Amino acid sequence: MKVIVIGATGTIGRAIVQAIGNRHEVIPASFGRSAIKVDIADKASVTKMFETTGRVDAVISAAGLAKFGPMTSLTDADFALGLNNKLMGQVNVVRLGIDHINDNGSITLTSGILSRRPMKGSTAISLVNSALEGFGRAAALEMPRGIRINVISPNWVTDTLKAFNMDPSIGTLVEAVAQAYVRALEGTMNGEVLDAIK
Amino acid sequence: MKVIVIGATGTIGRAIVQAIGNRHEVIPASFGRSAIKVDIADKASVTKMFETTGRVDAVISAAGLAKFGPMTSLTDADFALGLNNKLMGQVNVVRLGIDHINDNGSITLTSGILSRRPMKGSTAISLVNSALEGFGRAAALEMPRGIRINVISPNWVTDTLKAFNMDPSIGTLVEAVAQAYVRALEGTMNGEVLDAIK
Repeated sequence: MKVIVIGATGTIGRAIVQAIGNRHEVIPASFGRSAIKVDIADKASVTKMFETTGRVDAVISAAGLAKFGPMTSLTDADFALGLNNKLMGQVNVVRLGIDHINDNGSITLTSGILSRRPMKGSTAISLVNSALEGFGRAAALEMPRGIRINVISPNWVTDTLKAFNMDPSIGTLVEAVAQAYVRALEGTMNGEVLDAIK
Repeated sequence: MKVIVIGATGTIGRAIVQAIGNRHEVIPASFGRSAIKVDIADKASVTKMFETTGRVDAVISAAGLAKFGPMTSLTDADFALGLNNKLMGQVNVVRLGIDHINDNGSITLTSGILSRRPMKGSTAISLVNSALEGFGRAAALEMPRGIRINVISPNWVTDTLKAFNMDPSIGTLVEAVAQAYVRALEGTMNGEVLDAIK
């Protein structure tokens, strides 16, 4: 399969590329550090990416920005970042990508554990992650030509917890998170939210 | 308690006002047909509403627009309607309302069953409803002064199904839906998503 991985240079994206290995042809894309550059918040950029890659069998998105911080400190712009970037950026990858994906292909998006296990400071992110999961469940009912869509809702990645000086023992190894994307890519599930906890 | 009901003239809002009855002081607000007019998509309008009402003990929102239709037919503006109106409109009722709500008061928002039981044509609405539920769960962790927040995720209302020529037998009577709002108003739950199915 020919598989675009958006966010290929991020913590999870790198692990996805590694987990796919040589079994499929990976086309890495990212905001700044891949040969194919894409800003998911910009529809024209997403369209250009698909024009560059040509038709593919699958798109995996492990990209998207949203703002963490106390609800009373979050500005309109902070909420808009999550809505325009992580949420509608990924929704637009679906809307614009469908016509560039082969029959029986797949799209895999990324939400995150804060959808169902919020914490103080997560209002804008929990909102976006939950929205992606609701969108994915609904979009699965309308995908044409056997194309599947799933949402990976990863637990905290161990390395991320370490970077934030949080307890890494509650996390999941990024290699295990990446396997959830591989399962969505190579499996038959549709409209599922995979929590990537093995 | 002094309770603002936003969307007081809608199908569910009317039933909420009726269910509250004379046990509390209801202040009806709506886009066009109440003494207090409010456009939840307009922050200035929400602020003006709270300035008009003065401090209250509770705010119930049963308002918000989002677009139903096939995903491939939905425009950017259709998605934006749900994001700006039903989603951020209600989120902004919380953000702007907190300072106008008395200690140990409550906020109750409205999502809907399409968050967890999508149907063809519901992508934009499922997205918004799920987002509201994720936001509510997270916001509950940060509400000050004992203020509670809950989200009612009503099943289809029987009358709505009839109006859409759908099978009314899968629906819930609006009186039963309204009771979920009363439970959220008078109960002690916080951060819950109530499905309003009795």
